[in-house]
Amino acid sequence: MQNISFYQEAFTNHLKEFLKAREPASLYNPINYILKLGGKRLRPVLTLMAAEVFDEDYKKALDAALSIEVFHNFSLVHDDIMDDAPLRRGQETVHEKWDINTGILSGDAMLIMAYQLFENYEGEIFQSLAKLFSKTALEVCEGQQYDVDFETRDDVVIPEYLKMIEYKTAVLVGAAMKMGAIVAKANKQDQNNIYEFGKNLGIAFQLQDDYLDAFGNPETFGKQMGGDIIENKKTILYLKTQELGSEDDKKQIEHLYSLKPNDQTDKIETIKSIFESSGAAAATKKEIMLYTNKAFSVLDNLNISDSKKVVLKAFGEQLMDRSV
Amino acid sequence: MQNISFYQEAFTNHLKEFLKAREPASLYNPINYILKLGGKRLRPVLTLMAAEVFDEDYKKALDAALSIEVFHNFSLVHDDIMDDAPLRRGQETVHEKWDINTGILSGDAMLIMAYQLFENYEGEIFQSLAKLFSKTALEVCEGQQYDVDFETRDDVVIPEYLKMIEYKTAVLVGAAMKMGAIVAKANKQDQNNIYEFGKNLGIAFQLQDDYLDAFGNPETFGKQMGGDIIENKKTILYLKTQELGSEDDKKQIEHLYSLKPNDQTDKIETIKSIFESSGAAAATKKEIMLYTNKAFSVLDNLNISDSKKVVLKAFGEQLMDRSV
Repeated sequence: MQNISFYQEAFTNHLKEFLKAREPASLYNPINYILKLGGKRLRPVLTLMAAEVFDEDYKKALDAALSIEVFHNFSLVHDDIMDDAPLRRGQETVHEKWDINTGILSGDAMLIMAYQLFENYEGEIFQSLAKLFSKTALEVCEGQQYDVDFETRDDVVIPEYLKMIEYKTAVLVGAAMKMGAIVAKANKQDQNNIYEFGKNLGIAFQLQDDYLDAFGNPETFGKQMGGDIIENKKTILYLKTQELGSEDDKKQIEHLYSLKPNDQTDKIETIKSIFESSGAAAATKKEIMLYTNKAFSVLDNLNISDSKKVVLKAFGEQLMDRSV
Repeated sequence: MQNISFYQEAFTNHLKEFLKAREPASLYNPINYILKLGGKRLRPVLTLMAAEVFDEDYKKALDAALSIEVFHNFSLVHDDIMDDAPLRRGQETVHEKWDINTGILSGDAMLIMAYQLFENYEGEIFQSLAKLFSKTALEVCEGQQYDVDFETRDDVVIPEYLKMIEYKTAVLVGAAMKMGAIVAKANKQDQNNIYEFGKNLGIAFQLQDDYLDAFGNPETFGKQMGGDIIENKKTILYLKTQELGSEDDKKQIEHLYSLKPNDQTDKIETIKSIFESSGAAAATKKEIMLYTNKAFSVLDNLNISDSKKVVLKAFGEQLMDRSV
């Protein structure tokens, strides 16, 4: 097995070969644009790693990894339209650089191209990959829809929120790893365990994202601090406050989440102190640990060498330390 | 083999079973809504017919037929957003009844569900269906993009236009029939021939649609007469005028296609008479015959009984007579 930057580079080279000029340019240029924007390529790296965990050459998993990345970028293009987002990775979003119709149609083409990448695998593997992909892709759509629905609901409970982030974010991480296992012809039990590893790590990572929005280190977080608070986004910290806080905490936080002040500094500070005093911050940290440990405990059941388990655990720890 | 209305009813019953309530309702209700709106279900009927042409029970082809119909409706939902269309089959379009975001996301889910319907077939058939589907779906996206591009170009030539309608409309008709043949395990040559039959018939049908917009019988055409002329849409009649007309014809028609008068009666009548005097109308009729005959001549090469060839030809004739 190799380190993460090795797989990142191998993947980037494979992606470059994929990005050729195609007609009509008005359909394919936006696709090449978004795929070139970069990012850490963590999902495809996980596919390559998983293949090698189960003793297959990572090269065999490159197309499955590419499918995951093309799908992920499809979902970004369509989500950015829905969120009316002007920027993605510091650059213009597709619908901003071109227009909404281009974003819709280029996104559609990407979803189809993601399926086509499985055609380079033989019968049974093709079918397993395509089935897993369809199940996962539909869950991602459902997760996105729950997220949209939650914006206008004030009675969302924590199990619903956890299901939303599981579908919207975590199942794709699980599927990325399971695809590596499928390509490597790992047994079904190992396939399912590596999926659970990825999925639980994905949930932990997303919960930590919510936590770091309020309590992260501004120098390493990489996004605007307090961005969720500014947008009145009801993340796990808000929901835990609703669960654990005093009547006063709840009332105050509900009120603050209805405001959009020009200067958000006071609002952010007050909300952060309620997150802490109510116990929501500590409860969120506990939840993150719970899902991280759930992921790590699955490793025990995998039929792989201990040294490989160490590599997977180290990767998980790096991810949760935000040092990847 | 059965008649068309038999297959229509069998398909409608199968569709009804598919349309169950699913969560989140905000994602799946729009999908059920558009699929229930109706239409003649010609594409799925072709899949069922093709299966029986190659001696397979049509019931085996019901899920492939459903996939074609779900995909077709996916493309309608997204195209209606792009065209800003308020109505579809006399009812509100999805993005009009809900909103654009719902149209995008429900459409995405339908594209994935179309793939999932192949999972009810075994290995090799699954793979053939999924491969054909991806190729076709991507061509439909490309055709739609060419159509969008052509709106702002004034140098479109007839071969480009023919390619556009082939991709946007005809390949799905060919694929619908080929899927029936795949399910029936017909040999590759027969699969390709039935595809060519459907595709050429699809091109002929679309060209006839252009022709009937100007010269159809208002009582049977089913759409607004002269709708393409009102929208200054450069169909085959316009392009044939550019090819065959006098300098005067060309200038006059270019001018008329830049106008949007309140009362379109005179404009429509003048344009129609130019279509006729320039020879464009006759040339279009010839082109329609050419593709219809191309479709029928493929039938000779099929390894099926003469009586089945008669059924397929009769279907083609009914379609072109607009009596289906």
